[in-house]
Amino acid sequence: MSSPTSAAPVGRPRSGARRLPSATAREEILDAAAELFASRGYAATSTRLIAERVGIRQASLYYHFDNKEQILAELLEATVRPSLTFADSLAGLAPAAALHTLIRYDVGVLLGAPWNIGILYALPETASEPFAQFRHEREALRAVYRSLTAAAGGSEITGELVFGLVESVIGMRRDLATLPPADTLQDAVASAALRLLG
Amino acid sequence: MSSPTSAAPVGRPRSGARRLPSATAREEILDAAAELFASRGYAATSTRLIAERVGIRQASLYYHFDNKEQILAELLEATVRPSLTFADSLAGLAPAAALHTLIRYDVGVLLGAPWNIGILYALPETASEPFAQFRHEREALRAVYRSLTAAAGGSEITGELVFGLVESVIGMRRDLATLPPADTLQDAVASAALRLLG
Repeated sequence: MSSPTSAAPVGRPRSGARRLPSATAREEILDAAAELFASRGYAATSTRLIAERVGIRQASLYYHFDNKEQILAELLEATVRPSLTFADSLAGLAPAAALHTLIRYDVGVLLGAPWNIGILYALPETASEPFAQFRHEREALRAVYRSLTAAAGGSEITGELVFGLVESVIGMRRDLATLPPADTLQDAVASAALRLLG
Repeated sequence: MSSPTSAAPVGRPRSGARRLPSATAREEILDAAAELFASRGYAATSTRLIAERVGIRQASLYYHFDNKEQILAELLEATVRPSLTFADSLAGLAPAAALHTLIRYDVGVLLGAPWNIGILYALPETASEPFAQFRHEREALRAVYRSLTAAAGGSEITGELVFGLVESVIGMRRDLATLPPADTLQDAVASAALRLLG
């Protein structure tokens, strides 16, 4: 697995970085697909190519997934669902503290995934039906940021900007040759969000 | 031309919104391509389809552009070049004032384009040679944000976060059913950036 703090250069996978010894076939398919989608693009990646990378037949891939959409949907959901679940555990905290804690966690999720799947949020395909669940979960996470920001005294636009600030680490991971250590970036984004609240 | 403050829903162009009476063939090609790239996706859009939308032959399109890459490159450059040029005019201002002024302008550029082309920054294709000039100009703009942030007392990471905050309006324009008026959003992002500086 690539280091969560590295920029994971697109199109230049590290040899041996992808295969986890304990990975199930399903996980291997998701991991190979994530690499190919992030480096070659979604449209340019076929299920045949994904199967080839894993070293299985295309028919075996279809045993685990109905189609390419389902693979992408699962990868996208994995970028938001953990943070959405984590948000439920913050009910006891004051809004600003909850926001800080959630942002640290969420930035950790976005930096920690082996491939920078968030860059695929902008694909026009994600507007279609197979991605309804992903869109629903991402909107739910956005709503958490909005409501915590409001509870901490921030405006509606500030809530959007906080959400944008968190997701900006996807762009940093894509664009920067080297990223600060994950811990540093998690703290920096969380503190920046609190400064945004004024 | 669609209103700069509307969310320009992907895949739902307003009838008659695209054609400008005074547009040159070149501008019509760029405009039709921007719509198709933003709504159907880049990979799914052929030069034949672009020519069809404009109502010209594919051969006529090739009189203006060598290939699809060149069209996308020009569209992408138009999202950063005006702000980069504008930044040159700010030399006399104090860093925080320059940053505020640049952000208002830059957010205006990103919101004002008829189609939300910034969503295409994440295409893997933009890493290739035809987009070298775009990448160079976007990095130059990022460097302006970094150096103004540093001059105003912000950290290196804060410079990145300011850049991310500005570009987050691309995501808002993509995701939100209605956006605040452009003026409101321009001020909100510029003030938020100054709060980030602490």
